[in-house]
Amino acid sequence: MAQAQANIGVIGMAVMGSNLARNLASREGNTVAIYNRSADKTRTVVSEFPEAGFVASETIEEFAASLTKPRTAIIMVKAGAGTDAVINQLTTVFEPGDIIVDGGNALFTDTIRREKAVRETGINFVGAGISGGEEGALKGPSIMPGGSAEAWATLGPILKTIAAVAEDEPCVTHVGTDGAGHFVKMIHNGIEYADMQLIAEAYDLIRRGTGKSPAEIADIFTEWNKGELESYLIEITAEVLRQVDAKTGQPLVDVIVDQAGAKGTGAWTVQTALDLGIPVSGIAEAVFARSLSSKPAQRAAASSLPGPTSKWTVDDADAFVEDVRQALYASKIIAYSQGFDEIVAGAEQYDWDIKKGDIAKIWRGGCIIRAQFLNRITEAYDENPGLVALVTAPYFTDAVSQTQDAWRRVVVAAAQAGIPSPAFSSSLSYYDGLRADRLPAALVQGQRDFFGAHTYRRVDAEGTFHTLWSGDRSEIEATDTH
Amino acid sequence: MAQAQANIGVIGMAVMGSNLARNLASREGNTVAIYNRSADKTRTVVSEFPEAGFVASETIEEFAASLTKPRTAIIMVKAGAGTDAVINQLTTVFEPGDIIVDGGNALFTDTIRREKAVRETGINFVGAGISGGEEGALKGPSIMPGGSAEAWATLGPILKTIAAVAEDEPCVTHVGTDGAGHFVKMIHNGIEYADMQLIAEAYDLIRRGTGKSPAEIADIFTEWNKGELESYLIEITAEVLRQVDAKTGQPLVDVIVDQAGAKGTGAWTVQTALDLGIPVSGIAEAVFARSLSSKPAQRAAASSLPGPTSKWTVDDADAFVEDVRQALYASKIIAYSQGFDEIVAGAEQYDWDIKKGDIAKIWRGGCIIRAQFLNRITEAYDENPGLVALVTAPYFTDAVSQTQDAWRRVVVAAAQAGIPSPAFSSSLSYYDGLRADRLPAALVQGQRDFFGAHTYRRVDAEGTFHTLWSGDRSEIEATDTH
Repeated sequence: MAQAQANIGVIGMAVMGSNLARNLASREGNTVAIYNRSADKTRTVVSEFPEAGFVASETIEEFAASLTKPRTAIIMVKAGAGTDAVINQLTTVFEPGDIIVDGGNALFTDTIRREKAVRETGINFVGAGISGGEEGALKGPSIMPGGSAEAWATLGPILKTIAAVAEDEPCVTHVGTDGAGHFVKMIHNGIEYADMQLIAEAYDLIRRGTGKSPAEIADIFTEWNKGELESYLIEITAEVLRQVDAKTGQPLVDVIVDQAGAKGTGAWTVQTALDLGIPVSGIAEAVFARSLSSKPAQRAAASSLPGPTSKWTVDDADAFVEDVRQALYASKIIAYSQGFDEIVAGAEQYDWDIKKGDIAKIWRGGCIIRAQFLNRITEAYDENPGLVALVTAPYFTDAVSQTQDAWRRVVVAAAQAGIPSPAFSSSLSYYDGLRADRLPAALVQGQRDFFGAHTYRRVDAEGTFHTLWSGDRSEIEATDTH
Repeated sequence: MAQAQANIGVIGMAVMGSNLARNLASREGNTVAIYNRSADKTRTVVSEFPEAGFVASETIEEFAASLTKPRTAIIMVKAGAGTDAVINQLTTVFEPGDIIVDGGNALFTDTIRREKAVRETGINFVGAGISGGEEGALKGPSIMPGGSAEAWATLGPILKTIAAVAEDEPCVTHVGTDGAGHFVKMIHNGIEYADMQLIAEAYDLIRRGTGKSPAEIADIFTEWNKGELESYLIEITAEVLRQVDAKTGQPLVDVIVDQAGAKGTGAWTVQTALDLGIPVSGIAEAVFARSLSSKPAQRAAASSLPGPTSKWTVDDADAFVEDVRQALYASKIIAYSQGFDEIVAGAEQYDWDIKKGDIAKIWRGGCIIRAQFLNRITEAYDENPGLVALVTAPYFTDAVSQTQDAWRRVVVAAAQAGIPSPAFSSSLSYYDGLRADRLPAALVQGQRDFFGAHTYRRVDAEGTFHTLWSGDRSEIEATDTH
């Protein structure tokens, strides 16, 4: 048996796992045990990265024996059945007080289920969302661990050594119990979908509206990245748009098939929001925009559908670009507002004590949606922890006030030009719905009462009521809804 | 023991169940057995409706004995655990070849599960969607049964006696095996959400745009009901808008609290669409509009958020109303196109042979979304059973071509006026996305390749590719996506 010498172990030596292990090994105080189902892979990693000083094992027993107590292992395998298999293996070789961490992209309800099952053995189970892709894993990701306070006491100091750093603070915090970490990681990804779709719409509008080339639009994004839109996604958008395809000499973006893939976390965010009753329309439109793009047969059949009959032109390109920038900023505020609404609702539903301001803080570095902007969110929740909607915080209210005229002009332009802007226009509709004094939801309630006797409430009295639509149309008080 | 004399039984004597039982009893050739968990309720129904000649039982054994073979019973209880309990009871007293029908609003995956379990006993299990509310159950609903062909042979003739009739055809068809019926009923409800939201937006735009009263708008809807929008929902909207509150003398719609409720089938439709990768943005926006409306604390906090700074006015009220009518029609086509896309995808995923034209046919009567318009859908699928998207059928392409300028003007007006129009504008964005030659999804793929090495495809070559973004930015062929 190996001697217990490693303070942390990583299971799964695919790129994410080996990068995370290398990251851990590179930090003062860590000795890293590694294990992979196929030992070949483990041997390759050991020989490729001798500087890491990995303690490699070929069996799970050896791996457990190589860890100091409390044993702490991070599972980095493909989410799903493989995760359950590794957890089952670990529970046979770990002891009460040890810590199993799932660093994969698990659905938070799976994490809740697994935590409950593992807890019965006395072993701690932590679902930890890790964002930042392969490079983040290697150089410093944003880490969102759930699980018990006991596990955090051991795990926290280790994760702090490898997390990204933003303004001198490590991008990791104890999010909450059981599935809280994976839940918040899911929301992160949902916001990422919205952010990417909004950027894509901004690019499309500018390109089709002004005729600027991708390289010229890259310069615009680089400029935007110096202001309030400063973020990793804006930065890399400029890089992608500037890229020239070596084979054709064309902008790379014109050579890429315009069908966007998805790996499911955006859909989860929307599905969960529907369970929680939270309108995340911006995220939903982003997910749907990707699925629409990936229907080549439908798109071919629909390509002859007519567009606007009158010609649309942009008179002042610079003014239009500035309008699009402001629309992007306003829509982005809505996307984050909706995402944080879902965090608040999830925390309530699953009894997690999630500090919204801390979540915004740990997203400032390492992860895909990292942005200066997140400081404003932290400030908003620091000022008012009970904030009912992010967009109602003074800073964001001001921001939307200043940008909404431009936002409206852009949505108008898109509708007139026949340029799809699902996320821009959905965000604006959401904003106008949220601030409306009266919504036509009253009519919907009337319809529901008419055809289904679903009852309605009155603005001037307590209770629920029903109109006898098929009778004399008098109103009765209903004892309960049905 | 009771003598076997009833050809059909109904379990659950709440309003939907007793109405369906009365409907069955009123038709030539049917003798109806009834049973309810609490026998009091059964006795009440028997004494209230002596003309029905119900064969009442106080135990499940008696109920089974009162049915001729193959015994056929329709369960009309609240969806969920209650349904499972009744199914378990019935499987103890029924025999192979008998038929258990769940007429409740079950989630289709529950129906698949139940059908599989019950089938092992040799008993047939049929999940049947029933639409039309309480009045439909009594006078003639639209019925969407799944299950085996064997069950349909017995059940079909009975259901045909009670279904609504549209153009001399009963509104019932064998939708497909196991969960197909409840799946199609779910889509029906999803489309219903979209239809109601679109109508609500049309009303809101006309009211806020022209200052017309609810009664005046009722007249507009009555007028619309004579044309291509003819439908039950348009008809009852006029009724609701015309209703005057007796207590206050105000239009009822102004007295109703503007927070719309929901019972979950709309959310299921969207959640399932996300699993299937089908963009049902119109349905999603409708579901979200209801949840947004039901957040009074958020709405109160957001009520001071600013609207458009420039004043918006409608110059020609009649022209605006006609634009709204056309926008409603175009958006409605999109909602149905999205709903039928989900039916096609569900049929493929679950191996159901669903005749799309027949579904449109049985929705022409009895159900909430009944409309003349559905004949056009049947025709479209009759002409081309492999139609890839409803909106690309010649009739609907023509309709959208003729209405799209008005549709765009309405979306523009809503954005300028600050009137929320999530379903109108989302439908237009979907339309413009579907017909776009190039979508900015290519940029999204570029971003995904940059931060996650998710790879992309090229328009000019087979295979998947990756740019070495952190390296020399050359392109490599990827062996697989990761």
